[in-house]
Amino acid sequence: MSILIKNAENMGPVHIEGNRIASIGSVVEADTVIDAKNKAVLPGFVNTHTHAAMSLMRSYADDMELHDWLQNRIWPLEKNIKEEYVYWGTKLACLEMIKTGTTCYNDMYFMPGAAAKAAKETGMRAFLGAVLFDFNDSSMKDNLRKSVSEQVKDVESVKSERVKPIIAPHALYTVSAESLSYCAEYSRKHGLGVHFHLSETRKEVDDCVKEHGKRPVHYLDDIGFWGNSVVAAHCVYLDDSEINALAKRGVSASLNPTSNMKLASGTAPYPALTKARMNVCLGTDGCASNNCLDMIEAMKILSLKQKLANGPTAAPAQEMMKVATANGAKALRLDAGRVAEGSLADLILIDMKRPELIPNHDLTSNLVYSANGYCVDTTIIDGSIVMQNRVVEGEEEILEKAQEAADAWTTQ
Amino acid sequence: MSILIKNAENMGPVHIEGNRIASIGSVVEADTVIDAKNKAVLPGFVNTHTHAAMSLMRSYADDMELHDWLQNRIWPLEKNIKEEYVYWGTKLACLEMIKTGTTCYNDMYFMPGAAAKAAKETGMRAFLGAVLFDFNDSSMKDNLRKSVSEQVKDVESVKSERVKPIIAPHALYTVSAESLSYCAEYSRKHGLGVHFHLSETRKEVDDCVKEHGKRPVHYLDDIGFWGNSVVAAHCVYLDDSEINALAKRGVSASLNPTSNMKLASGTAPYPALTKARMNVCLGTDGCASNNCLDMIEAMKILSLKQKLANGPTAAPAQEMMKVATANGAKALRLDAGRVAEGSLADLILIDMKRPELIPNHDLTSNLVYSANGYCVDTTIIDGSIVMQNRVVEGEEEILEKAQEAADAWTTQ
Repeated sequence: MSILIKNAENMGPVHIEGNRIASIGSVVEADTVIDAKNKAVLPGFVNTHTHAAMSLMRSYADDMELHDWLQNRIWPLEKNIKEEYVYWGTKLACLEMIKTGTTCYNDMYFMPGAAAKAAKETGMRAFLGAVLFDFNDSSMKDNLRKSVSEQVKDVESVKSERVKPIIAPHALYTVSAESLSYCAEYSRKHGLGVHFHLSETRKEVDDCVKEHGKRPVHYLDDIGFWGNSVVAAHCVYLDDSEINALAKRGVSASLNPTSNMKLASGTAPYPALTKARMNVCLGTDGCASNNCLDMIEAMKILSLKQKLANGPTAAPAQEMMKVATANGAKALRLDAGRVAEGSLADLILIDMKRPELIPNHDLTSNLVYSANGYCVDTTIIDGSIVMQNRVVEGEEEILEKAQEAADAWTTQ
Repeated sequence: MSILIKNAENMGPVHIEGNRIASIGSVVEADTVIDAKNKAVLPGFVNTHTHAAMSLMRSYADDMELHDWLQNRIWPLEKNIKEEYVYWGTKLACLEMIKTGTTCYNDMYFMPGAAAKAAKETGMRAFLGAVLFDFNDSSMKDNLRKSVSEQVKDVESVKSERVKPIIAPHALYTVSAESLSYCAEYSRKHGLGVHFHLSETRKEVDDCVKEHGKRPVHYLDDIGFWGNSVVAAHCVYLDDSEINALAKRGVSASLNPTSNMKLASGTAPYPALTKARMNVCLGTDGCASNNCLDMIEAMKILSLKQKLANGPTAAPAQEMMKVATANGAKALRLDAGRVAEGSLADLILIDMKRPELIPNHDLTSNLVYSANGYCVDTTIIDGSIVMQNRVVEGEEEILEKAQEAADAWTTQ
């Protein structure tokens, strides 16, 4: 299969052969030709922190205190989780991501095997976490280790180059040091990435200092947890010594500005992270705390939030685009996130004939500060067209079944 | 002309007769019938602070320090302003507003006569400011007074019930006390509203205290400036005594959260404003500092920003909807902003079959925290359908001409 994207406003013809970009600038014969007049070609967005199936909880519980929200709304639902909820919730999330230009996501949620099936069917590229919580209960140790391998196998069983497992110990306050070490070892042994919640709230840091006499990053460094395959989500409360330690280990910081505002968690130290040359990438978090998966909106909110905290030149548009694309791909060790020869063909076309993108003094500024994900016209993942003229195959069924699954989940 | 909106998901049939809602709940004969299956009827949004023609500066100058931005990018352009730029910039802004569900806006920009012509032609409801700056130069006094009346006449000359003048002295630091008093008197005498920038930056407040020994609200109270026809935009730096004074005078506070983040101005004291029972409404500000006019996005950003500052229960979704609709109408003394018998027929239909609005546990939460303006399917203003199935008549011409005007303006 080959595709030629021609007449784009911002570059010469893009030739896709199989799942990679074969060339840019030459007109060649191709099986499918896309006329990109009045459109721009961009790399697809990489959403580095999601809980995709939680899209079924969108608008279920908002405007609440964190504790009340978790204890009385989210956790009671999760006690009754079923594979079909994860499957349809993930399908809904993949649909929304495709429609807003995201071509790859990094997920952490229960039953990743069901999520893998859904992601594969929609055409998304996904890293699905084998989740581990042990609540410091060592009696669960053996079962949990077994569960990690089983979840990895469940994801691998869908046999897709696009859908891969990652190891996802939840957070420092929910997983024992022993299990965290196990995850780090497992990931190194099997060449898998690690997805982890780090220092999302002040309480988390205070509790760690109280219990272990050290801040979280240093405590975890002592047990050999960090490495360049780790994506640390949130990173709100880090001091400079922690940032330097993470930078040294090659850890990627996935910032989730919207979720951190909605739950009043705080503002990540973006200037310090970039100064230390950490790889900073972007996530939306799940739909229970955002409540959407639109990466273009997330770029705007990250920039606005950083400007409010650090002045109007902070977090400029060009950086936001890199954070949302190339840096995300780097975090997941994926050869994508840019429109370049040899790179994976994970691309989007932007419809530029829209009021919010006119005038076009600067396309990047327009995308970051004025647009949202609904300016995406075409989404190509792994060399396959998964949306064209905003049409995604099977959309109506997904919306219906997702609503039914959400109703069933919340009314049992 | 009559319209019947039937089968809406959230209410019975809505019957519009002329420019008002005649009844809700009864099926009647009508000239036009709209099938609102899978749609919800809502009041249109009221954007209470814009500089509409500045849409031509969208993406022209971002990520800059305020002073550098104004002195080197915005003001040099404004020296070369022409009627055709204001006309096409306003048309572009009206198009974007209609497409994102805004049915009324409150504007402040040069050449309001040209803006009035544009607003009238698009079908928007608009309050257009007769702008006054005197930079404390008393030699300009007579000319300026004359200019206010002339601008009012220019707006009135389009002879539209939808397009009305308002008096718009720019701000305390750009207009003398004498001219501000004149504006207040003029507005009372002619029954016109007042649109004013209040305490957007800390510097503005500090300078006023230094020069006059009082904070801005008290200084202006002494000269009789405040009244219930005043819309004060921004209101970022107000202390409790100022808030109480404004509440007592019936002033409306138009918050502009996105602009205040992008320019790092600060966070308005929303909890204190609502506690004092001020009428709090919402604005986007102009596209040079937002950079879009999407009121649904603005609701989300206002709520997120207030939650970050004041905790996760601050600025809940239901309040945001009221702030963006009914409170805006109240600020402009307009019988709109709600779907109710007798109210002006300024309405929108939301397309609910979209991934970001599924599942629909709570429509208001979904709109505020997940959607953006592109979920609006139909926009009705003053009893006329100005958008249906997302189609606005003349859109293509507006986009083309606005781009041309922007190019001409920025390359002279």
